[in-house]
Amino acid sequence: MKVLVIYDHPRRSSFCGAVLDAFVSGMHEAGHLTEIADLRAEGFDPRLPPQDEPDWITGAKTCSPEVLSEQERVARNDALAFVFPVWWWSVPATTKGWIDRVWNYGWAYGDRKLTHQKALLLAVCASNAEQYAKRHYDSAMRTQLVQGVIDYCGIREGSLEFLHGALASEDIRQSLLRRAIELGRSF
Amino acid sequence: MKVLVIYDHPRRSSFCGAVLDAFVSGMHEAGHLTEIADLRAEGFDPRLPPQDEPDWITGAKTCSPEVLSEQERVARNDALAFVFPVWWWSVPATTKGWIDRVWNYGWAYGDRKLTHQKALLLAVCASNAEQYAKRHYDSAMRTQLVQGVIDYCGIREGSLEFLHGALASEDIRQSLLRRAIELGRSF
Repeated sequence: MKVLVIYDHPRRSSFCGAVLDAFVSGMHEAGHLTEIADLRAEGFDPRLPPQDEPDWITGAKTCSPEVLSEQERVARNDALAFVFPVWWWSVPATTKGWIDRVWNYGWAYGDRKLTHQKALLLAVCASNAEQYAKRHYDSAMRTQLVQGVIDYCGIREGSLEFLHGALASEDIRQSLLRRAIELGRSF
Repeated sequence: MKVLVIYDHPRRSSFCGAVLDAFVSGMHEAGHLTEIADLRAEGFDPRLPPQDEPDWITGAKTCSPEVLSEQERVARNDALAFVFPVWWWSVPATTKGWIDRVWNYGWAYGDRKLTHQKALLLAVCASNAEQYAKRHYDSAMRTQLVQGVIDYCGIREGSLEFLHGALASEDIRQSLLRRAIELGRSF
């Protein structure tokens, strides 16, 4: 498949960037083609301007050139993957704004929906799975992102994978990178 | 009380802006002093730069001037309120990034927490309460924002109020504005 991988971290050299590399290498092993959207390096502006506000009456409007170009790269791929650090139990602001602006009414939901086969969210977390489960942050994230964004927009197979312990020992970080390769291979 | 009201919409003239005016007028009736942070009009950049990444080792670092100035206006108020449209079952990207950047480790959570008496999230929604409840978007938002942000940072009294039906009839919109005044009065 052709897969658009949306990456959101202020530094490409971060541990999240290593997760991206591992995931992409696994995908290449499995024969997928990847296109990287490095939102921060590309300078994507997550602030939705009036031009990109949904037209609730007709669902038909011309978005900003920046959004049209993002929609083009979403459309030319068969599947999507997101690699990001969890900040405040969700995606960072840049990914949030990429969805706010690009996944517009009448294009990603409403009369017209997305036709991608699958979307995977790869969430890199500082704290561990028990802490997430205790406070229900894991299910809240699934509700918002998998059900409320991926499923909502008609993508058939949505999933959210947590990579817990990114600030823990080097051993744990290595095991997270192996997991990222595996998720790429089995995409 | 002195209350910082964080407003996030691309247009001040929107229905959300009318909700802000109604809420603030109610607060003034009750004797509160308000300071408005109109994030979009002020040009706040929600993209966290490396300078504002948390220092997980010591929790002590010097953030960017933009963040220091935001922290100053948070600190000089006794309480916080947020007025925003719900986009994808959460706050818009600009508010998300304001939290990502400004509510830093060692300042809002960790060794040092916020000392505000209360924080109210006023969420303006297109769809109705039944649609939210059916998909658990309401509880997911409470988990992320009230528990995961407000409570997490030590603010004693956090609450989330939904104003449902912002795209419905003029009658409903008028009733939402009355509710916003009431929420101001009883803040």
